[in-house]
Amino acid sequence: MHVLILGAAGMIGRKLVNRIAAEPKILGQAIDKLTLVDAFQPPVPEALASVSKALTVDLATSGVADKLIEDRPDMIFHLAAIVSGEAEADFDKGYAVNLDGARALFDAIRQQGQKSAYVPRVIFASSIAVFGTPFPEVIGDEFLTAPLTSYGTQKAIAELLLADYSRRGIFDGIGIRLPTICVRPGAPNKAASGFFSNILREPLVGKEAILPVSDTVRHWFASPRSAVGFFVHAATLDTAKVGPRPNLTMPGLSALVSDEIDALRRVGGDKAVALLRREPDPVIERIVAGWPTRFDAQRARDLGFKAEQSFDEIVQAHIEDELDGRVA
Amino acid sequence: MHVLILGAAGMIGRKLVNRIAAEPKILGQAIDKLTLVDAFQPPVPEALASVSKALTVDLATSGVADKLIEDRPDMIFHLAAIVSGEAEADFDKGYAVNLDGARALFDAIRQQGQKSAYVPRVIFASSIAVFGTPFPEVIGDEFLTAPLTSYGTQKAIAELLLADYSRRGIFDGIGIRLPTICVRPGAPNKAASGFFSNILREPLVGKEAILPVSDTVRHWFASPRSAVGFFVHAATLDTAKVGPRPNLTMPGLSALVSDEIDALRRVGGDKAVALLRREPDPVIERIVAGWPTRFDAQRARDLGFKAEQSFDEIVQAHIEDELDGRVA
Repeated sequence: MHVLILGAAGMIGRKLVNRIAAEPKILGQAIDKLTLVDAFQPPVPEALASVSKALTVDLATSGVADKLIEDRPDMIFHLAAIVSGEAEADFDKGYAVNLDGARALFDAIRQQGQKSAYVPRVIFASSIAVFGTPFPEVIGDEFLTAPLTSYGTQKAIAELLLADYSRRGIFDGIGIRLPTICVRPGAPNKAASGFFSNILREPLVGKEAILPVSDTVRHWFASPRSAVGFFVHAATLDTAKVGPRPNLTMPGLSALVSDEIDALRRVGGDKAVALLRREPDPVIERIVAGWPTRFDAQRARDLGFKAEQSFDEIVQAHIEDELDGRVA
Repeated sequence: MHVLILGAAGMIGRKLVNRIAAEPKILGQAIDKLTLVDAFQPPVPEALASVSKALTVDLATSGVADKLIEDRPDMIFHLAAIVSGEAEADFDKGYAVNLDGARALFDAIRQQGQKSAYVPRVIFASSIAVFGTPFPEVIGDEFLTAPLTSYGTQKAIAELLLADYSRRGIFDGIGIRLPTICVRPGAPNKAASGFFSNILREPLVGKEAILPVSDTVRHWFASPRSAVGFFVHAATLDTAKVGPRPNLTMPGLSALVSDEIDALRRVGGDKAVALLRREPDPVIERIVAGWPTRFDAQRARDLGFKAEQSFDEIVQAHIEDELDGRVA
């Protein structure tokens, strides 16, 4: 099987590649070709080095998608995107990558299929940013996508294209609406959502972290491990069971900032919690107030997608996957 | 005020032009320039002939949108579209006109606005085709747009663009989700929805009409007169009241085929009803079963949009507007 991963150098992309390398049959069949693509050089996993090719290209460049699809990959993970803040700041870049890039990919598949039968599986990373306020208390699977950012708009449009192209039999698509990923590894992130991860990741290694919102802020979370699990599960799912609405809100954990702090205390003690510096930031408070807090992801759960059910599990996943099981 | 109407040769477009010509201040200000655009030669209304220009161009052609927007129209009605059946049969044409055409128009406005301040009102003709089964018994304003046709997909995408461009202040947009228009004037239409109009229009002039579905089929209707009323109302609406979800399901009438027949009998008697030939068509039955039947268009109603409340009113509007008040 030939697997193509777009956005392979990103945080989730790298973890997905590592997971596939560790369990090569996790996608259903052995992988005899792995193509890793990103705007930045994607790392190649050792276990699959002999069958892997890493490409540094921009999906928004004309002809790139056609070239990638010429090789007729059987399974395509499309995780490449301009992130929310940048898509809001740079109108043209956001639309060029997040909308036109996805469409170029989908159209390249269509062109290939017109030459001879070709219907790959396409797994698309979408986001809960497709939803915008006002929200009901719990957002169900039939709630409208009325995004309030250009990023969310671009994801919602790509979802619509994915559904129409899948309905027409051009490919076999699944859209995965990711919760906010927590705990994000790496350096503290200046994205408005960065603090949700910073307040766990930093104290767990003995460093201070800033908490810009109140303890009572609620949000919707899943670990990086769960996110990779969503993509892997989507790869082998019987899409006949999915039906004509292939964009799925993933399960997640609805939790308060205070739930995060309680989980931090249980593994790191009061000394970890003492590393939190409360510095209320009205701008971040206001942005976060516009985000969804609770979903009933019934369709995805019924289809077998799974996420953590407590912040203890999320913290444990981070400690195992990023800290070799050790807490400072 | 300079008014631009795209799709001015279409059924609703022509009626909108006539309405504006009859009441020139109905859009709030006097019209000193009227640009009528369609892929077919749009008729020019006599009353506004001195300020009107009719153009036969295809919005999907590169540069056309830029050229139209160079003149900085204050109010833009975008009614141009490839209809549902054709958009399903011709993938490229549907996407080129319904998606790329709308986006080219919106982007032309953005480019103009970057030269100097320019924020026109944009009124976009969308459709209840943005919704797909399964439906709740009544579709509310928060129901998801999960279309099951390429036409519906293209309309839903244009709606998302309209909302994002409006949110960014590029223009002041309103999307009007039209019900099925009944009674459509003109020759019997082979569209799957054509019979809803045929079974009234034809018997009212003493001609036979085929009824391909059962009397218990329910659907969602408004007259051409109401459709024009929606566009005119949207032109002067205070969009501050609309907020960040500018795409509105219009009010309409949820009615059965038997309601149509009863209204026909009340104006045309049994001899009119006797002109209906029942020829069940399983293909049309199946297509119609996938269409929405009932909406609660609360937001639009609260904003002052109005439609007929009975088929008697719809039939009366047809008799007044198309038959000079006479029934055969």
